[in-house]
Amino acid sequence: MCRWMAWFGQPVLIDELLFKTQHGIVDQSLHARMGAEPTNGDGFGLGWYGSGEGPAVYHSVSPAWADPNLRELAGHIESPLFLAHVRAAIGSPVQQTNCHPFRSGRWLFVHNGYIAPFAGIRRALAMAIDPDRFPDVHGSTDTELVFQLALTHGLEEDPVAALERVVGLIEATAARDGATGEVQATFGVSDGESLWAVRYATKERARSLFASSDVDAIRQLYPDNARLSRLQPGDRLIVSEPFADLPGVWQEIPESSAVAVRPGGVLEHRPFRPQAPPPRAEVRQYAGARDA
Amino acid sequence: MCRWMAWFGQPVLIDELLFKTQHGIVDQSLHARMGAEPTNGDGFGLGWYGSGEGPAVYHSVSPAWADPNLRELAGHIESPLFLAHVRAAIGSPVQQTNCHPFRSGRWLFVHNGYIAPFAGIRRALAMAIDPDRFPDVHGSTDTELVFQLALTHGLEEDPVAALERVVGLIEATAARDGATGEVQATFGVSDGESLWAVRYATKERARSLFASSDVDAIRQLYPDNARLSRLQPGDRLIVSEPFADLPGVWQEIPESSAVAVRPGGVLEHRPFRPQAPPPRAEVRQYAGARDA
Amino acid sequence: MCRWMAWFGQPVLIDELLFKTQHGIVDQSLHARMGAEPTNGDGFGLGWYGSGEGPAVYHSVSPAWADPNLRELAGHIESPLFLAHVRAAIGSPVQQTNCHPFRSGRWLFVHNGYIAPFAGIRRALAMAIDPDRFPDVHGSTDTELVFQLALTHGLEEDPVAALERVVGLIEATAARDGATGEVQATFGVSDGESLWAVRYATKERARSLFASSDVDAIRQLYPDNARLSRLQPGDRLIVSEPFADLPGVWQEIPESSAVAVRPGGVLEHRPFRPQAPPPRAEVRQYAGARDA
Amino acid sequence: MCRWMAWFGQPVLIDELLFKTQHGIVDQSLHARMGAEPTNGDGFGLGWYGSGEGPAVYHSVSPAWADPNLRELAGHIESPLFLAHVRAAIGSPVQQTNCHPFRSGRWLFVHNGYIAPFAGIRRALAMAIDPDRFPDVHGSTDTELVFQLALTHGLEEDPVAALERVVGLIEATAARDGATGEVQATFGVSDGESLWAVRYATKERARSLFASSDVDAIRQLYPDNARLSRLQPGDRLIVSEPFADLPGVWQEIPESSAVAVRPGGVLEHRPFRPQAPPPRAEVRQYAGARDA
Repeated sequence: MCRWMAWFGQPVLIDELLFKTQHGIVDQSLHARMGAEPTNGDGFGLGWYGSGEGPAVYHSVSPAWADPNLRELAGHIESPLFLAHVRAAIGSPVQQTNCHPFRSGRWLFVHNGYIAPFAGIRRALAMAIDPDRFPDVHGSTDTELVFQLALTHGLEEDPVAALERVVGLIEATAARDGATGEVQATFGVSDGESLWAVRYATKERARSLFASSDVDAIRQLYPDNARLSRLQPGDRLIVSEPFADLPGVWQEIPESSAVAVRPGGVLEHRPFRPQAPPPRAEVRQYAGARDA
Repeated sequence: MCRWMAWFGQPVLIDELLFKTQHGIVDQSLHARMGAEPTNGDGFGLGWYGSGEGPAVYHSVSPAWADPNLRELAGHIESPLFLAHVRAAIGSPVQQTNCHPFRSGRWLFVHNGYIAPFAGIRRALAMAIDPDRFPDVHGSTDTELVFQLALTHGLEEDPVAALERVVGLIEATAARDGATGEVQATFGVSDGESLWAVRYATKERARSLFASSDVDAIRQLYPDNARLSRLQPGDRLIVSEPFADLPGVWQEIPESSAVAVRPGGVLEHRPFRPQAPPPRAEVRQYAGARDA
Repeated sequence: MCRWMAWFGQPVLIDELLFKTQHGIVDQSLHARMGAEPTNGDGFGLGWYGSGEGPAVYHSVSPAWADPNLRELAGHIESPLFLAHVRAAIGSPVQQTNCHPFRSGRWLFVHNGYIAPFAGIRRALAMAIDPDRFPDVHGSTDTELVFQLALTHGLEEDPVAALERVVGLIEATAARDGATGEVQATFGVSDGESLWAVRYATKERARSLFASSDVDAIRQLYPDNARLSRLQPGDRLIVSEPFADLPGVWQEIPESSAVAVRPGGVLEHRPFRPQAPPPRAEVRQYAGARDA
Repeated sequence: MCRWMAWFGQPVLIDELLFKTQHGIVDQSLHARMGAEPTNGDGFGLGWYGSGEGPAVYHSVSPAWADPNLRELAGHIESPLFLAHVRAAIGSPVQQTNCHPFRSGRWLFVHNGYIAPFAGIRRALAMAIDPDRFPDVHGSTDTELVFQLALTHGLEEDPVAALERVVGLIEATAARDGATGEVQATFGVSDGESLWAVRYATKERARSLFASSDVDAIRQLYPDNARLSRLQPGDRLIVSEPFADLPGVWQEIPESSAVAVRPGGVLEHRPFRPQAPPPRAEVRQYAGARDA
């Protein structure tokens, strides 16, 4: 099932949010509450912006609750923007190349959910990736293909629009038995300056997704909470499930919608409407021109 | 670079050949002599026929010299036919899904060498796999694609002919800059009843490959060698490099040739001649009909 | 918390019991029902008697539910006597040397529970091991020390009596603050010919432990159950928690008791009564004579 | 055999020294030149001072040449003082708790070499550790015991003097067959403010150890070398083997000697003279008082 979180704001030691929370993502690797399974022990990943060129990623096949390296990194790395993900694998192996976040250039990408029927439409999706990007696929997850498709469809210019096109493409793709693609998703995306999140499902309820409230509102609700008083205006968390039972601190992100967190922490909402793919000829621009 | 070996003959405890040899494949993971690098420490794999349904595979990202589980399995599993492979990765990650042998049904497949330029022709090769087999690709190696292409081209009926077709296909595939595919290979294949090996390179010398001599010949050469006297007629080893310095025990398999080991241990030799791919229309039978 | 199981009887493919059961030990790695935590994802181990010399052990730091190698081994290894264990670590790292079963010669040993206060009495227990056995300690678990202490105290002659002496020793050992040792345990032991299990706790209820009923009784209860009809007289399972909801198939092993499964499958019951350690002079036979 | 390196000086991205050198420690994991084996592929470790509380450690069982996480961390972590170690295991398992650097509080410790006969004197050494520190032993290496013994003998006040006492203790410890302890060592130690290194062997030549020359001297020798011109006065490297063939850049540290690198980069030399242990009564202060 997976769970993820993203921090956007003042530089913090990563373990402030990974380990020093009531029910943070590491606790959610063992005791998630808002999904079918409490356990997300099929590896994890951390992507962060800070020192060095572009974002760093750390992936491990160990369950997050057990990895001493994760504690070490979290306790000694400061970052103003990072994403963490704990995985519950559905069908694809537990290996580092199947851990999120996925990265391309300065972009990071996480996903909670699935694409179905994946075995039936996997080849079609792989072929719809820009052929020049095909060698960048290292794993076997549906998420990695979604990311590469989004890069193919302009993620670097407008991530939410690109994902609308990709979801539309998936929903228009059929397996051999006629079953059309279904998307169950929350997505998290960042370029190191902004942070986007999407919540959408083709059918049924989408996976849970929350944004933290404005810092002013949080402080007014909890003026005596020492931890919360350390928040600064512009600080924002996006999470699969809330880190603590504190009414008013978390706002559910509506289904079929997206948010963008801009520098300064402003939270913009917009609808998320999948775009049907262009006519077949245009699709062939990616999938046909260089067919063997 | 990789090294591999295959045993065909009487049931033996696997460690007889993996660990109780002068320079067996586990020693070759650290001290290979016949290649560019002495180290093949990027994971290993073992595939064996014996109890249970079809062949079993054990894959590990640990170097073979260091894995206690390998010693355990080798010391407690008896098999009349097994393949082992130690990996030196060229470009693709060290993960269990990139370890050899690869398996499909009752078939096992190993490879020493490479396909180039892999990044440039990977997509074309992936698309040439029978679309129904595409979901069976779990890793990111050139070897796995060769195997799936061979299955697509009739490996289950005639492995050597299928590989001739696949090598021909690769050599006829061009990357965007015009560079045509190059194959450097020894291949090992088995269905649990027979064992095949191929030695071929598009250019330059092919990787080394040896078959053990007939048991009668070995016994005549070394009548007092206790270990060798345990061999039975029909026992056969195929190896990347010999396990011991015993003149006459090993026969080099010529370049551009293949061998088949049949029940009873008879060793058949044949040439290996890549087959140019059929006209484009026929290729489309696999790559075109179901394009998205 | 951990869960374990042992099979004693006709040779079976290991996966019959690991994977083809309603709620076998692999399912218990993710959904255990009879303990504080449902998750036992801190590595696992398998020890089996069959081909080769003595028992084999396979240990992995991967959660049992996720390890493809476990499925492979289980599906291709037949054994008349094997133990499997899934681990929930309390305090010591997840590493292969901390997985159960532990092995010495032909003996295998598993444990569910803990020794407390372990940090406080660990050194005293380590020093009480026969000095010649000290180099055989490779990990950092309480279980491994219990096993080595039992070997020191005659496990190879009478496992249950040896464990009575060891539990008595632990309960008589005090940490610096005066807190005395506490044992929470089910133990499983085998030499490849017999199988023993112990259920005991210094205080509170002991961890759960069940033995399968006599095969005759099972067949009378479930004459139409195809799986159960394959059981042969003498077949016996010992488990932390039952594999299926089939009333009458499982008998709870009482607290402070032990069972022995003899060739032919006869189940012998006896009380388990910790033995206070011998006078200090005798203990020095192990801990004093060779002090540095 | 192992290789290690330590950087002391201006904050640098770790990969400047791990990956962007001609023959740095990652290259030495596969192509070491100054020891018996070229391969040090039995895990590695990195310890660094920077953000957060005390030093961080990252340990992996993967060979250093193959670990993508190491590249990531090195490329995105800046530190003014870090130690890295690649391991060739002699007898103890490859596991994270057996990787160097070892850490206690703000102290880091690495070792190239061995203690012999380790199995024969391991128990005596373990018992000579301050009993309150015994629970801090998590692995099974000789190095970890040396570190804990050094902490027991005042490492935190004077690391070199403590190591002189520990080496003296080891050389005065006998196995049951009378064989006395032998030390083969280079040691690296830091508290985040200073850096110490020791080179010593009981018999034979000690493992290689080099310090970089004063920055002024390096600049005079290589005024046109862009990389070397980035060095600042006070920058210092201590290495098992030099990173590049640049005469004059490296000074061999003599056998039976130690160096200290102080803030500002001053390199102090002193002899290293093992101290025989105090009379037995004093040793008992650690090993006897609390015997079980």
